[in-house]
Amino acid sequence: MKNTFGNNIAVTLFGESHGKAIGAVLDGMPAGIPVDEEFIAYQMSLRKSVGAISTARKEADEVKIVSGVFNGMTTGTPVTFIIENQDTKSRDYGELAYKARPGHADYTAEIKYKGFQDFRGGGHFSGRITAGLVAVGAVVISALKSEGITIGTHILSCGGVNDRTFNNIPADIDSLNNKEFAVLDDEKADEMKSAILSAKNDGDSVGGILETAVNGMPAGYGEPWFDTVEGLLAHALFSIPAVKGVEFGAGFRYANMRGSQANDSFRNINNSICTSTNNCGGILGGITDGMPIIFRCAVKPTPSIYKEQQTINLKTNEDTDLQIKGRHDPAIVHRARVVADSVTAIVLYDLLRNK
Amino acid sequence: MKNTFGNNIAVTLFGESHGKAIGAVLDGMPAGIPVDEEFIAYQMSLRKSVGAISTARKEADEVKIVSGVFNGMTTGTPVTFIIENQDTKSRDYGELAYKARPGHADYTAEIKYKGFQDFRGGGHFSGRITAGLVAVGAVVISALKSEGITIGTHILSCGGVNDRTFNNIPADIDSLNNKEFAVLDDEKADEMKSAILSAKNDGDSVGGILETAVNGMPAGYGEPWFDTVEGLLAHALFSIPAVKGVEFGAGFRYANMRGSQANDSFRNINNSICTSTNNCGGILGGITDGMPIIFRCAVKPTPSIYKEQQTINLKTNEDTDLQIKGRHDPAIVHRARVVADSVTAIVLYDLLRNK
Amino acid sequence: MKNTFGNNIAVTLFGESHGKAIGAVLDGMPAGIPVDEEFIAYQMSLRKSVGAISTARKEADEVKIVSGVFNGMTTGTPVTFIIENQDTKSRDYGELAYKARPGHADYTAEIKYKGFQDFRGGGHFSGRITAGLVAVGAVVISALKSEGITIGTHILSCGGVNDRTFNNIPADIDSLNNKEFAVLDDEKADEMKSAILSAKNDGDSVGGILETAVNGMPAGYGEPWFDTVEGLLAHALFSIPAVKGVEFGAGFRYANMRGSQANDSFRNINNSICTSTNNCGGILGGITDGMPIIFRCAVKPTPSIYKEQQTINLKTNEDTDLQIKGRHDPAIVHRARVVADSVTAIVLYDLLRNK
Amino acid sequence: MKNTFGNNIAVTLFGESHGKAIGAVLDGMPAGIPVDEEFIAYQMSLRKSVGAISTARKEADEVKIVSGVFNGMTTGTPVTFIIENQDTKSRDYGELAYKARPGHADYTAEIKYKGFQDFRGGGHFSGRITAGLVAVGAVVISALKSEGITIGTHILSCGGVNDRTFNNIPADIDSLNNKEFAVLDDEKADEMKSAILSAKNDGDSVGGILETAVNGMPAGYGEPWFDTVEGLLAHALFSIPAVKGVEFGAGFRYANMRGSQANDSFRNINNSICTSTNNCGGILGGITDGMPIIFRCAVKPTPSIYKEQQTINLKTNEDTDLQIKGRHDPAIVHRARVVADSVTAIVLYDLLRNK
Repeated sequence: MKNTFGNNIAVTLFGESHGKAIGAVLDGMPAGIPVDEEFIAYQMSLRKSVGAISTARKEADEVKIVSGVFNGMTTGTPVTFIIENQDTKSRDYGELAYKARPGHADYTAEIKYKGFQDFRGGGHFSGRITAGLVAVGAVVISALKSEGITIGTHILSCGGVNDRTFNNIPADIDSLNNKEFAVLDDEKADEMKSAILSAKNDGDSVGGILETAVNGMPAGYGEPWFDTVEGLLAHALFSIPAVKGVEFGAGFRYANMRGSQANDSFRNINNSICTSTNNCGGILGGITDGMPIIFRCAVKPTPSIYKEQQTINLKTNEDTDLQIKGRHDPAIVHRARVVADSVTAIVLYDLLRNK
Repeated sequence: MKNTFGNNIAVTLFGESHGKAIGAVLDGMPAGIPVDEEFIAYQMSLRKSVGAISTARKEADEVKIVSGVFNGMTTGTPVTFIIENQDTKSRDYGELAYKARPGHADYTAEIKYKGFQDFRGGGHFSGRITAGLVAVGAVVISALKSEGITIGTHILSCGGVNDRTFNNIPADIDSLNNKEFAVLDDEKADEMKSAILSAKNDGDSVGGILETAVNGMPAGYGEPWFDTVEGLLAHALFSIPAVKGVEFGAGFRYANMRGSQANDSFRNINNSICTSTNNCGGILGGITDGMPIIFRCAVKPTPSIYKEQQTINLKTNEDTDLQIKGRHDPAIVHRARVVADSVTAIVLYDLLRNK
Repeated sequence: MKNTFGNNIAVTLFGESHGKAIGAVLDGMPAGIPVDEEFIAYQMSLRKSVGAISTARKEADEVKIVSGVFNGMTTGTPVTFIIENQDTKSRDYGELAYKARPGHADYTAEIKYKGFQDFRGGGHFSGRITAGLVAVGAVVISALKSEGITIGTHILSCGGVNDRTFNNIPADIDSLNNKEFAVLDDEKADEMKSAILSAKNDGDSVGGILETAVNGMPAGYGEPWFDTVEGLLAHALFSIPAVKGVEFGAGFRYANMRGSQANDSFRNINNSICTSTNNCGGILGGITDGMPIIFRCAVKPTPSIYKEQQTINLKTNEDTDLQIKGRHDPAIVHRARVVADSVTAIVLYDLLRNK
Repeated sequence: MKNTFGNNIAVTLFGESHGKAIGAVLDGMPAGIPVDEEFIAYQMSLRKSVGAISTARKEADEVKIVSGVFNGMTTGTPVTFIIENQDTKSRDYGELAYKARPGHADYTAEIKYKGFQDFRGGGHFSGRITAGLVAVGAVVISALKSEGITIGTHILSCGGVNDRTFNNIPADIDSLNNKEFAVLDDEKADEMKSAILSAKNDGDSVGGILETAVNGMPAGYGEPWFDTVEGLLAHALFSIPAVKGVEFGAGFRYANMRGSQANDSFRNINNSICTSTNNCGGILGGITDGMPIIFRCAVKPTPSIYKEQQTINLKTNEDTDLQIKGRHDPAIVHRARVVADSVTAIVLYDLLRNK
């Protein structure tokens, strides 16, 4: 299904970084869901480049809804979001028409699309395409909120600086959703920004880890095989450019645990079934258990760096050197956080629509 | 789509641990692919419980193919595998009809299926259902091999003991496929088995990490959004019971890298485009780059342990204690390795069928 | 998705006419739906060959359920039906290994499957494969009945003899479900049987039209584009071997109507919204309107006839003559009727599971 | 999947008759397919209202492609078509906000979307949405033509006037594609137009039958169950508003045939396997046989007529009368013909992309 994801609701992404417009179609939303254009704009702002730690490319990112909304509410038919591209300096990318940027999709796109891809600014592979996901996500996040489900993502690690982990859900989630730079321990924000700037000054970039928590997801959603909650979330999360790992609950730490440490005991607390720990990240046998869903995404460093790199010429296949110019982010982890929230919302809302 | 996975080829899993039979339907295989029943039996043997480090339940696991194969070759229509259950001691599970085993799907199944699930031996959630995946996988692994693509999985870590990582592909892959206990450094096998036995003696269990390598996958497969190679593989891999994390290439280690370390330089080596390192695990922009695909799966410790645990009574919701009896594995990581190979084969063969 | 159909529930068909077994997997049924093995056997009997007007091949058609049912009720996980083949006289089909029977799939199968298909008795194309659909259908028909929805199909036309159309729903539906030979006007049964026998005596066969009515389907199901109720039903109904046309309500008669005759007026009758006529067959804009769903399927004459025919040799591509032997039906319309009910049930139950 | 159709290629439709824009996303097209904007405009013109026999609403129907095309060719990523709505006289529809037009989707939309639908001009149910299908279809028709496959649809019947059927393929197809009013026998054009005008003068409308032929489709495409060529085509064709029946080859005429008349004999003619007749419409066992594909769609009369009709008030559920004003087509069969071509092209191109 390529650029479409979802079963009960489905998101289709389209557009290229330097084309006329990017956008998304959200199909399957029930009729009568409020669409809050201010909240969409707020979410778009969280994804935007900010200050010295981000790319110099500035886009208005004004989201036009051209279908599926009537009198401020969903009609039940496809909602289409269009975001026009404006600040497209295609001249910056001349050399990149034939030199594959290491860590980017230039080479794989050339092979897959036989040279017909729109290479300008990464084309359809650009992180810019996530703007459509964020617009869709804003509508879905609102819908989830009205069902008592909230989602928050923080930068657990960036440039060697670690934030504390979630220890107070849902308050932690609420606090994140009001922050431009999403850390739980505010003192870490400046340290991370310094690390990012330091890399930028070296003509380099940094990676990081995003940690997401979901509160309020009821027990009983997901399937035992294939459409496990982990499988569905991971499937979608790996679409966030640069995500190269996804782990749930204790994740890779499970490898060094024994069963007696790893198992979460069930307890009845005030007539509600809980687990005393949450190593499983809220998912057992592929199915939600009613506890918070917790997962982490590994984000690789932005591949566009100013340092000179070795690569090949796509037209001649010969070795060459590359000095990337243009406007780039020394880190994307702080901008990707709202994309993680959006993707999570889409997957969970889709699951909730199973009868 | 619940218990069905795939686009060009599709696998449907069915069955319960203590029902009449388990099995799978493999649809979409081209006509004329040889089906080697001996190789199927060999793969099934790798998944079987072996010696002291595994459960005492012994199943013949004889695979009957009831459709889709004619004169030893696929017909192009659905191939159906039936594996009858024989060694089903249902009496062992009496108490488990109403006590939720921590770390298992008993509680989430009760919520999802409203008490109608076949709870015996974990029912449809049992690791036994992976036998169907392995049967399917054997056919697909053979088909991939004839296209020059090989897959191998080793136990990178188990019970605190670490194997070396891949450093000689494809020879490492070939060596693994002839080993019953899959480690690259043979000296680690006994250490790991000791660690497993030690946990068993304590009435406990251990987790681990599986690492998989794929050689020969051509460049250009996968999609930029949603159906990325990472997303598709992760979607399927999280169906392997106990897998709670999946990372590709450098994975979570990317978090502490800078772009200049992380980026894999492209080089033309003997008229073949390679990367000098393989941090990206053979996937860029969601698309294969022609280098080996490398990923790791975190496997949680077997949740069935003999130590007494706290849990709830599913019928009364009251707190209670649980002492699991019956036959269980102190580790499953060594048995899950062939399941990882099988799932990987299914996803990649499906991708290769895209025109 | 080839041999799998459905979204919320999904049916996978497998098997060949002269292989070990045929069957089906029904996934997505909610947990706790009663499975009545007697009713399954009754439905299977309606599909069976009966007396002089049907093939001499007799199959016990005993349906074994090997998964997904526990204590007589669905567990919520895949229900697998296995029907073993017994009365397989493969020697009858020798010449058909290389002569394409006109009107059959022998030639198209040879092209599609490159000669690897199981040609015996039509293989995977055999009408026998519909036995799996009928087994699945029996479970779904019961589930629909418990929601107040009933389905009935009669032979509107066969061998030049016409039955009356529905004029008393739901009583007509109920009466059909107790008849072995499904006509509304019982006097037509013998006439039709005579027409079938007459064709048989000529070494020939006859076609016909099936008409189906559904009562109790609530308004509001279906989609405006693509997944219209007409589109979904037709998609599935064309899988019934020999169906070559599907029309809803007035269908092709609409061509000669004017809008003022064609439009069904809405009326409030006892606080229920009805239409005064039902030319649209219960579907407007692709969505159910709460009136009975009415449609007709054109069924071509059984292509296996005893008269000598012209055809080609599949191995040499040369013209040749063919004298079909073996056991065949001079008509299948009376046997296909329960298949139509089953397919209809599957599509509608799937639709009803949309939230 | 609601408003998305297809497997290898997928079309998503969006928009409302009186919203900001309508359009479509076409995903899965291979890279490097030429996109001829002039041909798109030509196809759009065939769908447009023309002269006295069509609605007075005139739309520029300018198609903007905002993604997926670079240097005049597909890039391999989603192609998005946007058609802005301009001539939207919403004031015409005031009364229709609460009176259900007989034969329209107003009532079923009200039930399905709980009153939140955009009712103006039929909203998402409007025939206007087919403009997106035609834009997509134009690209796909071009791609098919370059593979030697051509499609043509004529008005077999309209207002009681019948055209001749296909008797000279592919010449008949070519001739149709140059005609604004698609009949094979040109003398019938004026008769049909007169019949349409006569109905218009009576404040009424007429229905008809479209017949489509496809030349050059190779043998071997389609599946035996569910994804039969008939099933896939019918699934999509029933999305064309007002289509209420689809039949292939002899279709409903099969009912009165005997097998000896119905079966198409295979013959080797100049080393090419043909059938001497084409009753099966080019499809056997759900699979193309290499002969022309032939099918017919029954089109109901435009439900919007000026004559007074009986209906209900959607807000009060009370009986009322309705006098439709606004601009409407007395027939849509002549405009739907290019939609039939487009839908056919989408389904067949999708099939051809199966490996």
